Amino acid sequence: MALTKRAPASRMSKILLGTFIHSKSRAQLEYLHNAAVAVDKDGTIVALAKDDHSADAAKDKALRDMGWDVNEVDVVRCEEGQFFFPGFVDTHVHASQYPNVGIFGKSTLLDWLEKYTFPLEASLSDLSKARKVYTACVRRTLSHGTTTATYYATIDVAATNLLADLCLSIGQRAFVGRVCMDREDLCPSYYRDASPESSLHATQECVAHVSKIDPGYDLVSPILTPRFAPSCSGNSMNGLAKLHRELHLPVQTHISENKGELQLVKDMYPDAPSYAAVYDAHGLLTAKTVVAHAVHLTEDEGRLIAQRQSKISHCPCSNSCLTSGEARVRWMWEKGIEVGLGTDMSGGYSPSVLEAARQAALVSRHLAMQIEDEELRERSKLTVEEVLYLATRGGALCLGLGDKVGSFQVGKQLDAQLIGLGVVGDDGTRAGEGAGDWVDAGNVDVFGWETWDERIAKWLYNGDDRNTKKVWVKGRLVHSRR
Amino acid sequence: MALTKRAPASRMSKILLGTFIHSKSRAQLEYLHNAAVAVDKDGTIVALAKDDHSADAAKDKALRDMGWDVNEVDVVRCEEGQFFFPGFVDTHVHASQYPNVGIFGKSTLLDWLEKYTFPLEASLSDLSKARKVYTACVRRTLSHGTTTATYYATIDVAATNLLADLCLSIGQRAFVGRVCMDREDLCPSYYRDASPESSLHATQECVAHVSKIDPGYDLVSPILTPRFAPSCSGNSMNGLAKLHRELHLPVQTHISENKGELQLVKDMYPDAPSYAAVYDAHGLLTAKTVVAHAVHLTEDEGRLIAQRQSKISHCPCSNSCLTSGEARVRWMWEKGIEVGLGTDMSGGYSPSVLEAARQAALVSRHLAMQIEDEELRERSKLTVEEVLYLATRGGALCLGLGDKVGSFQVGKQLDAQLIGLGVVGDDGTRAGEGAGDWVDAGNVDVFGWETWDERIAKWLYNGDDRNTKKVWVKGRLVHSRR
Repeated sequence: MALTKRAPASRMSKILLGTFIHSKSRAQLEYLHNAAVAVDKDGTIVALAKDDHSADAAKDKALRDMGWDVNEVDVVRCEEGQFFFPGFVDTHVHASQYPNVGIFGKSTLLDWLEKYTFPLEASLSDLSKARKVYTACVRRTLSHGTTTATYYATIDVAATNLLADLCLSIGQRAFVGRVCMDREDLCPSYYRDASPESSLHATQECVAHVSKIDPGYDLVSPILTPRFAPSCSGNSMNGLAKLHRELHLPVQTHISENKGELQLVKDMYPDAPSYAAVYDAHGLLTAKTVVAHAVHLTEDEGRLIAQRQSKISHCPCSNSCLTSGEARVRWMWEKGIEVGLGTDMSGGYSPSVLEAARQAALVSRHLAMQIEDEELRERSKLTVEEVLYLATRGGALCLGLGDKVGSFQVGKQLDAQLIGLGVVGDDGTRAGEGAGDWVDAGNVDVFGWETWDERIAKWLYNGDDRNTKKVWVKGRLVHSRR
Repeated sequence: MALTKRAPASRMSKILLGTFIHSKSRAQLEYLHNAAVAVDKDGTIVALAKDDHSADAAKDKALRDMGWDVNEVDVVRCEEGQFFFPGFVDTHVHASQYPNVGIFGKSTLLDWLEKYTFPLEASLSDLSKARKVYTACVRRTLSHGTTTATYYATIDVAATNLLADLCLSIGQRAFVGRVCMDREDLCPSYYRDASPESSLHATQECVAHVSKIDPGYDLVSPILTPRFAPSCSGNSMNGLAKLHRELHLPVQTHISENKGELQLVKDMYPDAPSYAAVYDAHGLLTAKTVVAHAVHLTEDEGRLIAQRQSKISHCPCSNSCLTSGEARVRWMWEKGIEVGLGTDMSGGYSPSVLEAARQAALVSRHLAMQIEDEELRERSKLTVEEVLYLATRGGALCLGLGDKVGSFQVGKQLDAQLIGLGVVGDDGTRAGEGAGDWVDAGNVDVFGWETWDERIAKWLYNGDDRNTKKVWVKGRLVHSRR
């Protein structure tokens, strides 16, 4: 073996071996034990084999299926109790606000923007500062298993392009949006686009940059990003909509996060039937649009969003921190709207989509507390399975990646994480942990008698980045820890 | 120096050196920079010196004050950006339920007890299982900076005594309660005390055990623990109250957590004016009583609890998980009631009091969302300072430890933690972190421009056990990590 010349593991085909867990549907997780997932050099899943008794037998099946020689593939085996899980999809995150996580005081949306957010975003026109912030953000979110991130950058072209460069080089699948905001009356003078024309031109520069560094948008894609209706002129929104129709690029924006914001939109567009209708009238509510928050939507707006097949990014952590409200995921689903999760850093304090999933479960319980009817109340709570669906397949569907990532299926790409939990020994200490020592396997303690369902619940509620041992994006190992 | 014979550090006097942060009041944190805290061999803080410019000058002052030789004290210096903080006080935690953290499905209190809780608690009469669970629980909570824990064990005498032994040997300040539950109609047949007399007798056995292993209750104290009104007969509660009056032991129980439970109590005591009045009528509502949850208290109950000077353990994580409701901390404060935080594992999923503090801030925001009046709404939110007060001094006051722990003051004992945050370098990586490497300093990223207030907010919202570098209880170093 020592003499066999092998290609570097990153360029080799791979076989992942062990237990694979992913969403079969919104309500159900599928557990594939003793399974082998074969991944080709391009990062595509090309075979999935199972065996009733042994992972090695599954491996042999997969090798036979592919006609691969075991010496020419990289075999990644999960240890006892570990499992593979799809990478997380963060459908709404402000990379530029990462340094402010946890800093919001008692503010709510509009004063938070003025006090904490705009000054920080504006300061990232300093490219050395932008490099520091964006590198830390991409590395941090990857370490939490975020294989796809939908980023807001800032209004600055060079800094936004730098974020796209960093995603590509570090290896995170990303949508990178230059923030458009040109309304003189509502954007601060030190931080706004000079005109609708210059806003559009700057956006086109960012699109051109991504087209140059990743021509097929295989890993990084531009995304059109009107900040939200109150900060964009009608002309600017119309211009972005035209670009959207011509280039078929996705769109992201905010909607109905906070009551002050609702009033602002009403004052700005007194004749519009609703907030959602404002985006619709400007051509920005389409099947490729992700609107974040959607806390206070009316029935009419829900129907309109469903009709346009637009998607919603649910940001529970942010909505709780900024006292915005409690968004109704089950109501959205019942309207036929696809929903994903957003960390919304730094409105939300955590870079972790697992934390967002946890918070989605909690917010659904806060909603339930207000429901008198017992059956309706019980039904409104989101389950472990449902919030993990939001974190993976739901997010992938929101971003048009439903056939590419979000589960382990032949033809999809390998965006995945290897999860390991802590195992408590009979003496109450962790394996390998001596007196005074501390093995840092995180906070999930498995005692040995838990079912798989219970292990997953424990991971959802107490897991953190320590449980994410390895992360692959498009087959490339982009993060690992002991 | 190498020839100087030194006592082992644990038996030596200590000087802690650097930045100390603690609650000055509910609303305010005090920052002591360049400070030195001198701690004698018994773990008592005997001097506190400050200097305007240098920690070393403060150290020299403290040495002079105490007449100590620097070679005979253990000097603990915090590194740049680190700080000392009081240890956390967990005023409500079920050690026996630790293996179930994160496992609650869609259940609420009463079905959760039947389905998840009673079977696990009953199984801990197996002492080898109890040792595994309790050791893991004590070590885990210490690693999160919990220097004082108020535990519910189980009904089993030997296992409860084992928990007390473990707290004493591992070094956690603790109140250890044998759970009393004897009502035939409401406790499962496989898990209940045989009679009021046997319940009382078993409790006395546990009290006697702690009196033997820690005669002055210096570190570990018994606590009388009627589970809650629905599980205790009147005779059993009266018996505990008699013991309470005779031995001056503290009491803990649950109150008004869930609406089903409220109805149950109403059905059991149709003539009682309220749930709180039931405890009061049985002599269990006193200045040494801590009642947990208190979500649905009436105005009358609030006044009664205040009048009796009883204390409340607020358990926000549990109340959200089990859909119990949103307890009103500010309302309790306005009534004049002292409040602390409880993790309430495993109703709450997290062993961390820092997480409980975070959740207290979030729950106060969910309450605020329901308030129309803007001024009242803003006022109802709990601040960073307030939830950290709940986690330390508030908890200490609830447990009658107000003059012993909770802040850095001469005469108090050293129950403290050393906190370290992660520092992001100019290239966006952590100090010491190379390509492909990952320094595990946790999730708090300090970029360098944050104020101290902002650092504390970042720690509150993204901190975890990785930021708790060292933990001392009564001057003894009981946990450390790199």
